[in-house]
Amino acid sequence: MNGNERQVPAVVIKRLPRYYRYLSDLLKADIKRISSGALSRKMNVTASQIRQDFNYFGGFGQQGYGYNVEHLYRAIGDILGLNSRNNTVIIGVGNLGMALANHGAFEKRGFKITALFDNSEKVIGRVINGNTVRAVDELEDYISKNRVDIAILTVPKASTQELADRLVRSGVKGILNFSYTELKTDGSAAIENVHLSDSLMTLSYKIKQLGE
Amino acid sequence: MNGNERQVPAVVIKRLPRYYRYLSDLLKADIKRISSGALSRKMNVTASQIRQDFNYFGGFGQQGYGYNVEHLYRAIGDILGLNSRNNTVIIGVGNLGMALANHGAFEKRGFKITALFDNSEKVIGRVINGNTVRAVDELEDYISKNRVDIAILTVPKASTQELADRLVRSGVKGILNFSYTELKTDGSAAIENVHLSDSLMTLSYKIKQLGE
Repeated sequence: MNGNERQVPAVVIKRLPRYYRYLSDLLKADIKRISSGALSRKMNVTASQIRQDFNYFGGFGQQGYGYNVEHLYRAIGDILGLNSRNNTVIIGVGNLGMALANHGAFEKRGFKITALFDNSEKVIGRVINGNTVRAVDELEDYISKNRVDIAILTVPKASTQELADRLVRSGVKGILNFSYTELKTDGSAAIENVHLSDSLMTLSYKIKQLGE
Repeated sequence: MNGNERQVPAVVIKRLPRYYRYLSDLLKADIKRISSGALSRKMNVTASQIRQDFNYFGGFGQQGYGYNVEHLYRAIGDILGLNSRNNTVIIGVGNLGMALANHGAFEKRGFKITALFDNSEKVIGRVINGNTVRAVDELEDYISKNRVDIAILTVPKASTQELADRLVRSGVKGILNFSYTELKTDGSAAIENVHLSDSLMTLSYKIKQLGE
């Protein structure tokens, strides 16, 4: 890995998870090698786009002869930081938090859900997918005793910034935020905001194109 | 609206919901005009990128003097097809389906949840956010009597393709798919796949950058 990665455009980064998912499917199907042409048809991206994307990371070699699927899968996983386990906690065990706590795809990608937190007596103590829901009051104590890499916030808007501050102070490096708020941090943690309605808006655009 | 829109790159389309959300916040704050410079700082995109993006749709005018927030908001909403109501049904009322049925942001963007379907006796008949859960068996009957623009699929992988086929046969034009499967359609409907683990992978990349 080298410092040049800092210049990788955000759009290229956004495509890496898709490549990674697709390569994972190829591996499962025991496919060992794929040409950039075949990869491009499957991914619905031009072959030249794929080569450009991969060139940001040194190219991953062997054009013409094709890409070694396992090598490419591991290399992209390394760039994304997926080859070591990311201990992940969920704060807010409502319907969405519960759905995420049971989401098999997270663990498959190395995001191991290690703890759940909520402030409602209704869910504290419940066991969900092997984890007992803890009180939010115990958050700092838990983080001081257990490595936590990522926190997923599925709490009401009003609590999001306060919880993000507590997480960053406790040394958590990444927050996945499902509340519709702009989180502010001091730059010592990474934030990724998920807006579920964006996908509906994109779909709505695609539907309009059908009719034109 | 003109036919040129078909050539708009997917990355530009992906940015439109973000512009739309941000402009909605400006409107709420009663801000009437914004320069491309100020918009660019807030959105963390270059001003030239914003101008390039908007040029795909005719530019939305007034550079130097700034953009009229309400005009821009309506114009982007029109491009995205948000200015008329999209009747939306959810199929699969597990934790994720329930979270989406209660997700306020959908209705705010014109996606009105009009019906819920599940095949489990445990949830059929339950009322969630004003909608009674119906049996999946009633799907075709419901669609023949009520306009349905979009279906959100939050069902197990194994049922996804069959349900998508039934929806497309019934004339539904858009499917938002939360199951990790590649849906096939005959091209008469638009599909948008949501991969919740992609956002965690992007976050993981950002965390790695912090440490470098």
